[in-house]
Amino acid sequence: MVTIKDIANRLGIAPSTVSKGLNDANDISPELKKLVLDTAIEMGYVTKRMKKETRKRLCIFVENMQYESPEDFGFDIILGFKQAALRDNWEVTVTSMSPLLQLRDPYDRYMVKNSFHGGFLVGFALKDPWMAQLKNTTIPTVLFDNYITKNPNIAYVGTDSFEGIDLAIDHLTALGHTKIALLNGSPDSMVTINRYDAYINSMQSHDLKIDKNLVAHGYYVEDSAKYHLPTLIENGATAILCGNDLLAVGVIKECERLNIKIPQELSVVGFDNLPIAAEISPALTTINQDRIDLGRNSYAALYWLIAKVPISRSLLRPRLIVRDSTAQIPSAALSD
Amino acid sequence: MVTIKDIANRLGIAPSTVSKGLNDANDISPELKKLVLDTAIEMGYVTKRMKKETRKRLCIFVENMQYESPEDFGFDIILGFKQAALRDNWEVTVTSMSPLLQLRDPYDRYMVKNSFHGGFLVGFALKDPWMAQLKNTTIPTVLFDNYITKNPNIAYVGTDSFEGIDLAIDHLTALGHTKIALLNGSPDSMVTINRYDAYINSMQSHDLKIDKNLVAHGYYVEDSAKYHLPTLIENGATAILCGNDLLAVGVIKECERLNIKIPQELSVVGFDNLPIAAEISPALTTINQDRIDLGRNSYAALYWLIAKVPISRSLLRPRLIVRDSTAQIPSAALSD
Repeated sequence: MVTIKDIANRLGIAPSTVSKGLNDANDISPELKKLVLDTAIEMGYVTKRMKKETRKRLCIFVENMQYESPEDFGFDIILGFKQAALRDNWEVTVTSMSPLLQLRDPYDRYMVKNSFHGGFLVGFALKDPWMAQLKNTTIPTVLFDNYITKNPNIAYVGTDSFEGIDLAIDHLTALGHTKIALLNGSPDSMVTINRYDAYINSMQSHDLKIDKNLVAHGYYVEDSAKYHLPTLIENGATAILCGNDLLAVGVIKECERLNIKIPQELSVVGFDNLPIAAEISPALTTINQDRIDLGRNSYAALYWLIAKVPISRSLLRPRLIVRDSTAQIPSAALSD
Repeated sequence: MVTIKDIANRLGIAPSTVSKGLNDANDISPELKKLVLDTAIEMGYVTKRMKKETRKRLCIFVENMQYESPEDFGFDIILGFKQAALRDNWEVTVTSMSPLLQLRDPYDRYMVKNSFHGGFLVGFALKDPWMAQLKNTTIPTVLFDNYITKNPNIAYVGTDSFEGIDLAIDHLTALGHTKIALLNGSPDSMVTINRYDAYINSMQSHDLKIDKNLVAHGYYVEDSAKYHLPTLIENGATAILCGNDLLAVGVIKECERLNIKIPQELSVVGFDNLPIAAEISPALTTINQDRIDLGRNSYAALYWLIAKVPISRSLLRPRLIVRDSTAQIPSAALSD
């Protein structure tokens, strides 16, 4: 058990000064306060405030993702997490994050300062400041769709992209498609890399030729589709597998503008199964991620990390939802 | 909701006959009884006995693995599972399995007949009869160290072999070893395949040459080591990474017989951290699988599957336990 004295000895200052730093007193410098807090965290000291805290507190940090309305990808993830956590009497705070805010306080200090026992990070990019710090964090932390190696305090939760992409390619090959393009999202995310690897794997296991001209990387937004669609079509794609539903919606809208008939002339598959997938015309065939379950499972992983069970990754099964945007390959394409 | 009448209509027999089949009556033939039960399972009928059952029942099936005494690999896994399950008021049965017993009853029928709500399968081989049936099972089932694709009723639980092997190779390369051999276990298990892939991956990421003469497959028993050790040494190995602790113990004993000094002349690393790893001389450096946590985590995954959350895989972090069987590469080997 680390005491205030231990921290004082380590820093070569008086225990009373350490105590001031831990209790946010005004008569020591902000720099020294930070040093005391950082050293306390590093040595595993539990502050009195953390011990006294009657409410157990968790924080969900969201970045690069909409979550305010039920149509948004993040909404149900946060809802599922909260539902499960509140049942166990946790108080859950949701905070919007940005790279700039991450520069203000290192992750561990932010968590201790605010008496959070664990964090759930959603939508972070690989290059985010906090992502580098997580390598050594001592705070139980669950990452949605991100993975950190060799730290027993961190778990990765998500949907199995490999199985999702494989289900989609099963479906498309059963319809006769062989020239299946991948229109993927931003390259600076782990999910994008996973879905690309999954595409390569699944194409190979279906004995299909991999054509680099049928792979494009845009961004996970509707507007990104139009820049890539013409080239993919030119290169012979009869089906396009999209990195998420927003990209797929972009493809459907652009096809309407270009007078390309879906699914007669081109099959389109999304990923996520957002509400819009069922509403758009033609309704989108897509890979479902159950976001309420993802939220519940993320809380479960965090619960285990806090109990010192070193969960490394916990993934959910995707399901393929077949709607109207996929069909038998056009016979014209067959004769190519 | 499926009724007895629905089953009767489907089979073209009287409802009273269906009822006899479901209630294990003596005046219908065993063949018809099986047909009734299988049809009921397929149609999702819940028997009265299952509804009445006041105790909720789970079954752990163990094959190819010792679990009776605390030294055995399976002991703590079962203990951890039971501890977690009993807290939720489940009754847990442990059953030894064999391929022959699996031929007597298909998995789903066995589970329904015995009113089990979920199963936890430990130590099964890829070629086991039940493994093929699990592809389509409707019974919530957790597999230790085995993976079935595309069935939302099945989860895979284990320790991350990739990270484990990578930790061991980090350690050995830091000690100067480059000729690191892999003495792996039986090729008909998923874990063996994973550890082989992990070895190849990690050797590559450490910029080490992969030499097929430094890879051998034996069985996960002590006695297997002696058949492979001489060849690995002849081929220049200065360190041997073993598929489990029993193989590593076999290597240590055989080295004693051959008068090869560990760790001065050869470094040895195990996998599992069984009690014997700390007791043998020299004490074995090994990759720890926390088996109590594996048991708890397996129960947690089964709990979620029963609640219809389609967990696909849930892995734990390994830890490297450095003891006395690894050391700096001998200077003689360096000059090779």
